[in-house]
Amino acid sequence: MRVYILPSSFNGEKEITIKGKDFHYLVRVLRLKPHTPFTARAADGTFWTLTIKKIGQMSLTAETKRVEGKAESTTDTLSCYDGIFPPIHMYQGMSKGKKMEMIIKACTELGIHKISPVHSSFCVADITAKKQSRIERYQNIVKEALQQSGSPVMTEVGDLIHIGDLNKEIENPSRLLVFHQVPQKESSSLFSILRRLIDQDPSEKISLLVGPEGGFSDDEVSDLVSHGARPVFLHTNILRTETAAVAAAALTQQYVIDLLSHK
Amino acid sequence: MRVYILPSSFNGEKEITIKGKDFHYLVRVLRLKPHTPFTARAADGTFWTLTIKKIGQMSLTAETKRVEGKAESTTDTLSCYDGIFPPIHMYQGMSKGKKMEMIIKACTELGIHKISPVHSSFCVADITAKKQSRIERYQNIVKEALQQSGSPVMTEVGDLIHIGDLNKEIENPSRLLVFHQVPQKESSSLFSILRRLIDQDPSEKISLLVGPEGGFSDDEVSDLVSHGARPVFLHTNILRTETAAVAAAALTQQYVIDLLSHK
Repeated sequence: MRVYILPSSFNGEKEITIKGKDFHYLVRVLRLKPHTPFTARAADGTFWTLTIKKIGQMSLTAETKRVEGKAESTTDTLSCYDGIFPPIHMYQGMSKGKKMEMIIKACTELGIHKISPVHSSFCVADITAKKQSRIERYQNIVKEALQQSGSPVMTEVGDLIHIGDLNKEIENPSRLLVFHQVPQKESSSLFSILRRLIDQDPSEKISLLVGPEGGFSDDEVSDLVSHGARPVFLHTNILRTETAAVAAAALTQQYVIDLLSHK
Repeated sequence: MRVYILPSSFNGEKEITIKGKDFHYLVRVLRLKPHTPFTARAADGTFWTLTIKKIGQMSLTAETKRVEGKAESTTDTLSCYDGIFPPIHMYQGMSKGKKMEMIIKACTELGIHKISPVHSSFCVADITAKKQSRIERYQNIVKEALQQSGSPVMTEVGDLIHIGDLNKEIENPSRLLVFHQVPQKESSSLFSILRRLIDQDPSEKISLLVGPEGGFSDDEVSDLVSHGARPVFLHTNILRTETAAVAAAALTQQYVIDLLSHK
């Protein structure tokens, strides 16, 4: 754990009590002792130094102190997030349990800003009935991945959304890239699409849509495209959804870094 | 399974007997019946149509017929592999069991030509003692991933190699890219390195080296760099080895496709 993520209820209090899984991790796994300072980060992105005052059987109390600017221990905080950088929002077709969790973990680690599960017609996994508990589970995975990776981006989990409602949710549909396994008439290379988007506005959000195990139906893709979304075809093998998600996220991020650093 | 991979012992015989796991998969899982033709691929990359003649309790026999050119059922075979394309060789720091298997699976699916496990000083997994059985296991994972993904690249598994012996193994060390978690003085962007390599020779092999869970030591990296290897730093978060491997493979492949298609 490179940086501890403070609970969203934290509001700058001088002292904080940590219980449950976090307590277990800090005390039993990392074996932190009283008076040990460690770096923490609040939901608003600010850094704090926590110093353990007392360790009990089930909880610990720690003093908090705001760190101005960047915390020293997060040397991973990279220049690409310092200046202008568009938030990347991953819309991921709902996949089976473990796959979805792997994708959320990898996207968080890569520095994706928001991950929303998407329900579409070929989804084999349907979480509609247990949505709330599943979203909470995803939030915990994000939190653990943020702690382990020290990513400076405070990744959020979005609500489950139906693919038919994406057009309503996305403000600027021309900034939605649909990764499809079949080349469309309108498909351009990912790089050329991103170059256009970064030219138009280097800091406006870019959204990615990756299909579930079964992919998207052609109708789903054409509906999005008719509303302005850009189909992307990677000119590589057809990938499993977990590989496609990591490839789409890593490629988008790296192309944007290239485009912004050449500016 | 999009294409069945023939055993390496297959040498164009008119009839073939299939036993064991493959028999189970074809007959029990895919439920193929006598007279069903299916597409197969030999180790030399040629395509064959197999037609089942007889299904027994433990084995089946099938007639083989060479398919000229590309088999129709492998619509996934993409243009990027048709023309000039450099083979990509992934040298992957030995990681714990499941991670290593995930990496091999994803790299095969992406169309990496060869994957060699590398032993280095921070490796937590050491397979030296059980090398033979482990390499065979990796070969099976590759075979399954080839069958599932229908990748047109016949991925090979290389022998376990010690990082200190890489300089001897790699013919042209300037085509070895070392993905390191720390930016080096000589680090350039992956794209600019690949542009130079493709300009020099668009069809000569490009090798990637990705660290194990613990990363590489600075000495290991500087030794390789002093022999001509190129350090690459992705300007993103520090990634777990399994995410780094997929990102490195997908980025390299996509940049090469971009470079060759703009030519």
